[in-house]
Amino acid sequence: MTHRPCRDFRWDGVPVRAYKDGEGPYRGVTRHTLFEASGALPAEWRYFEVEPAGHTTLERHAHVHNVLVLRGTGRALVGDRVHAIGRNDLVHVPPMTWHQFRAGDAPLGFLCLVADDRDRPQLPTPDDIEALRALPAVADFIRT
Amino acid sequence: MTHRPCRDFRWDGVPVRAYKDGEGPYRGVTRHTLFEASGALPAEWRYFEVEPAGHTTLERHAHVHNVLVLRGTGRALVGDRVHAIGRNDLVHVPPMTWHQFRAGDAPLGFLCLVADDRDRPQLPTPDDIEALRALPAVADFIRT
Repeated sequence: MTHRPCRDFRWDGVPVRAYKDGEGPYRGVTRHTLFEASGALPAEWRYFEVEPAGHTTLERHAHVHNVLVLRGTGRALVGDRVHAIGRNDLVHVPPMTWHQFRAGDAPLGFLCLVADDRDRPQLPTPDDIEALRALPAVADFIRT
Repeated sequence: MTHRPCRDFRWDGVPVRAYKDGEGPYRGVTRHTLFEASGALPAEWRYFEVEPAGHTTLERHAHVHNVLVLRGTGRALVGDRVHAIGRNDLVHVPPMTWHQFRAGDAPLGFLCLVADDRDRPQLPTPDDIEALRALPAVADFIRT
């Protein structure tokens, strides 16, 4: 498909899917695969939308994320810092770095680019969570 | 850099550069490299902005483009069709397909993803231009 018009953050021919298979430590998130990876361009370009008061999974992995906020505002944990994020802001998540996105009072929508060849996310162990909670700002922020 | 805030389609630490080196058959276009390609994610994520009445170069190449319109409206030639494009619309440019973007009355800004490993663009020869002009809608649209 050459051209996919967009209406209100929904794209012709792009299904609105569950964020992950099955239940998990996330809330109110949808996944939209805007462009599949291919041999010619080995990166998958997705759009995630987090409903008000929702959050993505707190996780880490060897692959990196490149993110651009398309709508709304929210906060993002990357490593040991919580960033206030808004429209068109860029976020880079380095390898093996804990990260989580939370929406504000309106839907938070962001583009997220990943390599086609990538590892599966890891969830924090109880020890990881204890270590993350050592920082008060992180302790207040994370949802597990 | 983990977080680059955006103000009015300009990003902290991302220089506004010329669209191409030197003069060419384009008008009023800037280039912003939002995320460089890396071994972990071999795709370069750019933002191009076309001023009102401006246009990108009419060109083709073996590599593909995945595009999302971030601001404004305009038109895009892809192959033998001219598409009216607006905010958040997706455009895919297949290999070796002539393409050109033109802004409307306001700046047209779009995200454009390319593989790190890619060929150089080709400009149309006089014969190519004659062939493109065989279609009236394309003849009216292209700027060379």
